[in-house]
Amino acid sequence: MAPTWTDLFADRTRNITSSAIRELLKLIQQPGIISFAGGLPAPEVFPLARVRECCLRVLDQDGRAALQYSPTEGYQPLREMLAAGMERQGIPARAENILITSGSQQALDLLAKLLINPGDHVLVEAPTYLGALQAFNVFGAEYLTVPIDEDGLRLDLVEAALRARPRFLYVLPNFQNPAGVTLSRKRREELVLLADTHGVPIVEDDPYGKLRYEGEDVPSLMALDHARRPGGGNVIYLSTFSKTLAPGLRLAWVVAPAEVIAKLVQIKQAADLHTSTFNQRLVYEAAQDGFLETHVQSIRAAYRERRDAMLEALREMLPPEVGWTHPQGGLFLWVTLPPGIDCRQLLKLALSECVAFVPGDCFYAGGSEIGNRQMRLNFSYVEPGRIREGVRRLAAAIRRF
Amino acid sequence: MAPTWTDLFADRTRNITSSAIRELLKLIQQPGIISFAGGLPAPEVFPLARVRECCLRVLDQDGRAALQYSPTEGYQPLREMLAAGMERQGIPARAENILITSGSQQALDLLAKLLINPGDHVLVEAPTYLGALQAFNVFGAEYLTVPIDEDGLRLDLVEAALRARPRFLYVLPNFQNPAGVTLSRKRREELVLLADTHGVPIVEDDPYGKLRYEGEDVPSLMALDHARRPGGGNVIYLSTFSKTLAPGLRLAWVVAPAEVIAKLVQIKQAADLHTSTFNQRLVYEAAQDGFLETHVQSIRAAYRERRDAMLEALREMLPPEVGWTHPQGGLFLWVTLPPGIDCRQLLKLALSECVAFVPGDCFYAGGSEIGNRQMRLNFSYVEPGRIREGVRRLAAAIRRF
Repeated sequence: MAPTWTDLFADRTRNITSSAIRELLKLIQQPGIISFAGGLPAPEVFPLARVRECCLRVLDQDGRAALQYSPTEGYQPLREMLAAGMERQGIPARAENILITSGSQQALDLLAKLLINPGDHVLVEAPTYLGALQAFNVFGAEYLTVPIDEDGLRLDLVEAALRARPRFLYVLPNFQNPAGVTLSRKRREELVLLADTHGVPIVEDDPYGKLRYEGEDVPSLMALDHARRPGGGNVIYLSTFSKTLAPGLRLAWVVAPAEVIAKLVQIKQAADLHTSTFNQRLVYEAAQDGFLETHVQSIRAAYRERRDAMLEALREMLPPEVGWTHPQGGLFLWVTLPPGIDCRQLLKLALSECVAFVPGDCFYAGGSEIGNRQMRLNFSYVEPGRIREGVRRLAAAIRRF
Repeated sequence: MAPTWTDLFADRTRNITSSAIRELLKLIQQPGIISFAGGLPAPEVFPLARVRECCLRVLDQDGRAALQYSPTEGYQPLREMLAAGMERQGIPARAENILITSGSQQALDLLAKLLINPGDHVLVEAPTYLGALQAFNVFGAEYLTVPIDEDGLRLDLVEAALRARPRFLYVLPNFQNPAGVTLSRKRREELVLLADTHGVPIVEDDPYGKLRYEGEDVPSLMALDHARRPGGGNVIYLSTFSKTLAPGLRLAWVVAPAEVIAKLVQIKQAADLHTSTFNQRLVYEAAQDGFLETHVQSIRAAYRERRDAMLEALREMLPPEVGWTHPQGGLFLWVTLPPGIDCRQLLKLALSECVAFVPGDCFYAGGSEIGNRQMRLNFSYVEPGRIREGVRRLAAAIRRF
């Protein structure tokens, strides 16, 4: 008798559900839909010629090594390059502080394995990155939440949450996903001090930091932690090549104290042995001679134009009782509708107008009243000329509500 | 005050230790050492020209899609190709039965997440693949073990173990890692029936099935399960491109009932979103026009020569009281030394003779008396001319003991 497999699934799988976003992304593959729903980079900005040239360089110079198994911790020259890059951002780091991962999502999975016992509380922003909640849920995380405003995490509310001794604080300080807000320098300094005082480590997720379209860079929480106290030690930092080079290569990294990296290496070994040797060498080659610094300028220019097109269209076309954030960088902005509008129902109307977004409640750990009338809009993927048309359709859907 | 990170590690991390093999591999990077320790393919067999050509084809034909995010379940043409390949091996499968993973190690991690509650028992061969034990340990697995002989898992002992209702049976039927033995057809048929009768699903790991150097192919457990009963349903099958193309690309797949794949997709989404789009398209292109079938013939020829060189040298140089398996394929053979020899101590002598192997006890869940005098020898990595010299050194170390 064939087993009923669902009866065999482990208890933790009850916490695992498919991302509403990814399910949605399938629906909106239909031609004609203008999608503000995904978080995709614009394929137009991928440096195809550079990737092509570097594939050949990797294969022609040391191709057999590039196709072979390699150490779990990552390709040593890439780790050294990343450590040097961290130093330039005020984060003293050596190769032993760097782990290469198969995208930042894997870093979240490995950190969840490392840090979360079932029932442990993780402190997250409300709203926060859905993929992090998914990674943490697998390991039985519960949540404490602190709301955000235009300057990021509400510092006036964070201390009470820290006092409840969550396992760690997960935060996206730059151009947050989903809300697009940036944690101010003043709040960062206070947060680093408070977290340390309460003995709560910080996991700082920074996929978008290089994508700033206006204003000044703000030091990372990890840099501020190091500035406060030589050696730092209370922050784990994540970043990725997905937004500055290409997400399809699945390449990211973790910066952490050496003892944390050593344990993460053991965990990663059991999870996938190592990240593709070829892709690591490819990205290392692609990053040589300051290529990414130059390339990211063109990405910034492209996304700034798209952000501005969206902001302008929203101002012109949305009713005055609708509010939205003004992101200084990243891929997303965050819309709050007046009470009485339910964004899941609005999405149905929007899809009938051939435009898509992600309903805001997806991004709240444990749901939220206000999240039901919020939505995330992505401005990186749709070409600028189509953004205006997409917002026009969105405005029509809102009017129909 | 900086936290003592080790105090913050979750309880499950106590089950996680670094692979003795991988730690060993670091030690034996010294030049001059002949290593039978790793499980590396010979880099000489990597089809570098084909990979180069297919990189260009992928980038020139649809490069921007290859660098973009993609669905968690995998690149659809690759899934369809693999499903068709499974059909040719007697396993009725459609794309919905295939999940692409970042190497088979990830498949083991995802299956452990899916199936193992802390304290659950998994039935494994004694000895078995160390990486599987590592993946299962993270999720709190306990073990039931059944010894193997030259025909694989001892069927006369398996029923008692199945009666204890392990969560699943994990088995490597072809050219097993570490012992190189192959489960006979008769035992396969009995095993599929027994597992079904006792309601214990089978996870069949088949990384080496295409690497047969003598004898006839034996149907997979999954094929036999399908042959017994239309629809099959009691077996999950794993295989990989690591041994037939290149391990550095980290590309493998799972074949399972659609409801299992659907849940694994959710779990993989939280683990790494998806496997590298570029690598999936690259492997798909490389596999076109029957390339892998032709290429694997040259791998077989190369490894057969190495296996034969090792078997001949062992026969000539090792004392008569030493025994070893005769693998019909794969990468490994398994040596049993006479009582009184401890392989960990022997390894120290061997390293001083500049030859390396992996001590057998590593491969037993929960240790083993006999494992202390066993060792795994890899014959795929060392060039044939050096294999003889390596065995000479090994014989010298054994004599010194």
